Amino acid sequence: MSRSKHRGPPRGRPDGTTNPPPRTSGRPHQPTGGGYWLAGTHAVMAALANPERKVRRLLATAEAARALAEPYAKLRADHALPQPETVERVEIDRLLPAGAVHQGLAALVDPLESATIDEIARAGAARESAIIVMLDQVTDPHNVGACLRSAAAFGALAVLVPDRHAPEETAALAKAASGALERLPLVRVTNVVRALEELKEAGFWIAGLAADGPRTLAEAKLSGRIVLVLGAEGEGLRRLTREHCDHLVRLPMTGAMESLNVSNAAAVALYELAR
Amino acid sequence: MSRSKHRGPPRGRPDGTTNPPPRTSGRPHQPTGGGYWLAGTHAVMAALANPERKVRRLLATAEAARALAEPYAKLRADHALPQPETVERVEIDRLLPAGAVHQGLAALVDPLESATIDEIARAGAARESAIIVMLDQVTDPHNVGACLRSAAAFGALAVLVPDRHAPEETAALAKAASGALERLPLVRVTNVVRALEELKEAGFWIAGLAADGPRTLAEAKLSGRIVLVLGAEGEGLRRLTREHCDHLVRLPMTGAMESLNVSNAAAVALYELAR
Repeated sequence: MSRSKHRGPPRGRPDGTTNPPPRTSGRPHQPTGGGYWLAGTHAVMAALANPERKVRRLLATAEAARALAEPYAKLRADHALPQPETVERVEIDRLLPAGAVHQGLAALVDPLESATIDEIARAGAARESAIIVMLDQVTDPHNVGACLRSAAAFGALAVLVPDRHAPEETAALAKAASGALERLPLVRVTNVVRALEELKEAGFWIAGLAADGPRTLAEAKLSGRIVLVLGAEGEGLRRLTREHCDHLVRLPMTGAMESLNVSNAAAVALYELAR
Repeated sequence: MSRSKHRGPPRGRPDGTTNPPPRTSGRPHQPTGGGYWLAGTHAVMAALANPERKVRRLLATAEAARALAEPYAKLRADHALPQPETVERVEIDRLLPAGAVHQGLAALVDPLESATIDEIARAGAARESAIIVMLDQVTDPHNVGACLRSAAAFGALAVLVPDRHAPEETAALAKAASGALERLPLVRVTNVVRALEELKEAGFWIAGLAADGPRTLAEAKLSGRIVLVLGAEGEGLRRLTREHCDHLVRLPMTGAMESLNVSNAAAVALYELAR
């Protein structure tokens, strides 16, 4: 598949904003015209390096601008990027949710063009082995972002989320993904069960992570094309999702806790599958 | 070791508070007298179930109070707990940092009595195999909390953090730990290098996670008593910490990312060591 079409979810809210209004009333909310603000060194630098990502504005503190100068000159030689605007730290603070860590760097970007489940299924079918992560009703953007990062680190093909019950492509998600949003398709699917069926037809095995799974993921010795399905923390997999799994597997836990954080569970499972 | 003395860090700020002041000006900041507010079902229920945890007040919405009634009656039969106070959701909102998820449940608790590094070293020396996690300069309370949760899930003995450069025992940390703060000692050490030396004398091998480690953690085939050391994201291990490691090991990554989120890296490493 061409990498160019397989990145990121479709555009966000009808009003075109994804960030909350600024915290101070002294400054009007700046319209983002369908885009959103990315912040932090890793997320912003990865967006600048991605030729598929439309960057409209780039704000940097004087200190961040100095650190940025050399890599930025190289990137601008490759593709069109806006002139950086040197601003005070507080101006970036105002554009972001309260308490957001931005390291003096923010970029106004357009959401990436989304891949479709058909494209992902075709890309998978063309490979002997591939891993796709399906996050069913994981609503915390930090968790979805961290899962994207781990999925990229362990060479997965894509992360799928249901179109409803999943966070938008936002600054918080992009920050937690630490650049992975530019490298791995985050695909929204209308219907989780239909997506799993389509992937089965493309030669994927569906493995659902469940605390009551009869075997551990290692014991199941899965190989080839695999969809790893993780449910919401606490509630686990939904009944219908569960019924569409070929395998229900668990992670071995020796201690006192019944579960891991969902992004930690995804990282461990991806590591086990990559071994 | 007695479980009773090995839990949680020493008391927080000199003024005895760990939460920021409430967001609304209509209500004065309630003094917490050295305690702090825990929130969320898992964190609060684990605290209520822990006989070593002093719970001073328990606030619940009417809905949360109904769900709580039966387990709470059992717990109160075992040890002293305060009468629950039924409140409106917004009253709990006011006690917590903006945006904190509390599921209608909050408890004002005293910090747990901290274990000392000596006690942990002795507990480790008495075992044939044991894992201790050292987080060197991991400052995000969500990451420290998630590491505690994973450490508990994979049967580690304790999580160590430097007394400086580590977050206090707060609601955010306790929430991310999802109850693990009640089950696993979180120990603050004055000097990281001295703590590692003391653990070496107690028969521990020190394994530092480093992207440039010559072998993967799996290849190193570690067993027995192990301290797993993780540094700050981005910067990695500090030079002195690194020099005190017996092994420098990496996690195998097949994809495009140079690193995992620190709590995800800890979960994967703990899984590999537990295998």
